[in-house]
Amino acid sequence: MRHDVSWVRERFQKARVVRLATVSGDGSPHLVPIVFAVDGDRLISAVDQKPKQTAALRRLANISANPFVSVLADEYDDDWAALWWARADGWAHVEHDYDLAPLIARYPQYQVQPPTGPVIVVEIDHWSGWSAN
Amino acid sequence: MRHDVSWVRERFQKARVVRLATVSGDGSPHLVPIVFAVDGDRLISAVDQKPKQTAALRRLANISANPFVSVLADEYDDDWAALWWARADGWAHVEHDYDLAPLIARYPQYQVQPPTGPVIVVEIDHWSGWSAN
Repeated sequence: MRHDVSWVRERFQKARVVRLATVSGDGSPHLVPIVFAVDGDRLISAVDQKPKQTAALRRLANISANPFVSVLADEYDDDWAALWWARADGWAHVEHDYDLAPLIARYPQYQVQPPTGPVIVVEIDHWSGWSAN
Repeated sequence: MRHDVSWVRERFQKARVVRLATVSGDGSPHLVPIVFAVDGDRLISAVDQKPKQTAALRRLANISANPFVSVLADEYDDDWAALWWARADGWAHVEHDYDLAPLIARYPQYQVQPPTGPVIVVEIDHWSGWSAN
């Protein structure tokens, strides 16, 4: 069944990881897992510059060519009656000086080593969600 | 670090769920979790027609407008040194009469109730994968 925005937000917020889909200028999708924070209808995610530079550049290049993004939270369960997903669709831009406090607050790992790369900011236009039950 | 195709295939195969990104004719990405089977460089996934008809139609409409898809397996861990992802990029088409045996073999749920909807067939053009360690 489909769910209302408050259900979707709650499920999404609880997720530790979500997947970000961006689209290149020639229409190819690109997909990576991201850690994130949501504040109202805005999602932020930092790019780690070091270990995955290629992937990071692709993501950022896509956003500058095409701002539309889709972000998905889901959890698998062998009991298919327990399946659900929560999705945020919107448009993104890249910031180089952005307040990362909400992100650092969510992930103790960032408290040890704060992210230094650019920040993807998604303005969420549409929340949607589904569960089997 | 980046990994070779055999590492990526193995991680991907072990995943129970992956996320499928498609792109609409106007360039918007769409993201859903799917169950799947991989045989060589071909991935298949069935569409359940009943509970999520809207999502199913969107996915199929996107593929007929734009065949490029990206499919991601990943697993979150609070130990960020254990993070990894495995991705299959390629092009998709929709079949209405396709051998679902590999899919049914992977999921006992499908043995009870085989899928009846159309089948998304992805020809995988590129495997890529990353792990923190």
